[in-house]
Amino acid sequence: MFVNRKRILVEFGDCDPAGIVFFANYFRWFDDCTTALFLAAGFPIAALFSAHGVVGIPVVEATARFLAPSTQGDALVVESSVTDVRTSSFVIEHRFYHGRELLLEGKETRVWATEHPAKPGRLKAQPLPQELVTKLTGKRTKAAKKRPGARRGR
Amino acid sequence: MFVNRKRILVEFGDCDPAGIVFFANYFRWFDDCTTALFLAAGFPIAALFSAHGVVGIPVVEATARFLAPSTQGDALVVESSVTDVRTSSFVIEHRFYHGRELLLEGKETRVWATEHPAKPGRLKAQPLPQELVTKLTGKRTKAAKKRPGARRGR
Amino acid sequence: MFVNRKRILVEFGDCDPAGIVFFANYFRWFDDCTTALFLAAGFPIAALFSAHGVVGIPVVEATARFLAPSTQGDALVVESSVTDVRTSSFVIEHRFYHGRELLLEGKETRVWATEHPAKPGRLKAQPLPQELVTKLTGKRTKAAKKRPGARRGR
Amino acid sequence: MFVNRKRILVEFGDCDPAGIVFFANYFRWFDDCTTALFLAAGFPIAALFSAHGVVGIPVVEATARFLAPSTQGDALVVESSVTDVRTSSFVIEHRFYHGRELLLEGKETRVWATEHPAKPGRLKAQPLPQELVTKLTGKRTKAAKKRPGARRGR
Repeated sequence: MFVNRKRILVEFGDCDPAGIVFFANYFRWFDDCTTALFLAAGFPIAALFSAHGVVGIPVVEATARFLAPSTQGDALVVESSVTDVRTSSFVIEHRFYHGRELLLEGKETRVWATEHPAKPGRLKAQPLPQELVTKLTGKRTKAAKKRPGARRGR
Repeated sequence: MFVNRKRILVEFGDCDPAGIVFFANYFRWFDDCTTALFLAAGFPIAALFSAHGVVGIPVVEATARFLAPSTQGDALVVESSVTDVRTSSFVIEHRFYHGRELLLEGKETRVWATEHPAKPGRLKAQPLPQELVTKLTGKRTKAAKKRPGARRGR
Repeated sequence: MFVNRKRILVEFGDCDPAGIVFFANYFRWFDDCTTALFLAAGFPIAALFSAHGVVGIPVVEATARFLAPSTQGDALVVESSVTDVRTSSFVIEHRFYHGRELLLEGKETRVWATEHPAKPGRLKAQPLPQELVTKLTGKRTKAAKKRPGARRGR
Repeated sequence: MFVNRKRILVEFGDCDPAGIVFFANYFRWFDDCTTALFLAAGFPIAALFSAHGVVGIPVVEATARFLAPSTQGDALVVESSVTDVRTSSFVIEHRFYHGRELLLEGKETRVWATEHPAKPGRLKAQPLPQELVTKLTGKRTKAAKKRPGARRGR
């Protein structure tokens, strides 16, 4: 499993009147961390999308457990990895640390989406590219397993 | 169960390069909707906190399922209600609608937190005030049930 | 001069650790108020843009003087109007009030921009549509004055 | 004059439906850059404030000229410096670059504010500490010039 670490400096403007990071901002950082994960894995998102005709990877589910707060000046480290790949969606896990203290555990489920071939303006979920899955998880997709050309030993 | 409806107008600045609301912004709106729920129930948050020595109601868990996107100019309606009350935490559910279409289902778990009596700068979870629980859920808290003065029939 | 009034409720998440609105958020509201101004004047932005081939009205200059702070729960009223129209740009003034107290005076200069006819991906500033200028300012544009068909009395 | 350079990576969530940074976000970065400027000058803001009884350095004026847009993935460099010091306020200039292209010129005017000695909950502007002015501008404040102990040649 490929894990990326991204540093985030908590700024004054990220914090709320309680003096701690306003919880919605962590979800903003989820997105930044997913972008960084793809880049670190060798798949800069803009190039990846245009190569595969992908419109985006919209979030269909997001969740976070907030274990401890962070405040202005804290240098956080976020560990991000793809922990599950389904047919046309995948799960990214983010773990926020301040020093050795785990502050937050979160997950995003995203869809690999292309323009719908028949319905203009609509999206269609697609299987993830095999090269991406292999790099991020070390595993092959179900779709790839079914394709004769994807057999081991060839 | 007390349900509040809040209108949200989706603005240009809420949307991302895909032309739809950036998903983290819905969590910002969760907070706005919780504030509005308390106000509508007769408990404006600032007054409620100062009356009970509460420092805040920090979010310890948040989750959302994104069913359909929304875009600039959409007038959303969010239905918010307290769906569960535990000893010192409670769950608020938010359902975002555009017209009759459900766009998002989300939940926040929050803690009723006061200054820790012994440890300065730390928080201590406390049972929610009974009047608040009764209004929001129509039920009594566990703590209230144990108190003799809270018995039915008296 | 056409003036629109928009109500803004200051939310917890708009405020910073000093307990007042984080100043950058007022600029976010500038944009919301400009959208509302156009809508109130009878020109919903999406329809206006598609009718005139306009890609957007990017901000080329923004400025604000902060006279007094606002905090969670404050119901602000913003008065917005177009105070100046140049050949291909225009100035929108925003005045934020809390009750009768003026909190902020700000200005945005924006450009009326279409796709550049010769250079793909670039923008070209264009004169504003006369109907829009007339409605917002009660005046005619310079371009319109030069056009014979725009003479009074015809 | 002390100049600090801060790197900012433009993220997807910073951009609007036009695919470029939503202009209000630059003002958020102004604040981050001012914090970084103080830190780089040897005055971490939290420590500085508590040492001088300062509540904050609220922005009383902010302005920006947007010369060129930036988009997701752009690595910006912001040059920040204090360009003017008045009795109890100071001006910070920020210049945003993408490579060698200047994207934005902006200024913030901020006040050095302490709790008002007589009126609880109100702020009182104060002269900036001399050590801070000297470091950031290489000049002495007017207040310092008037103090006998601040005369040259002693």
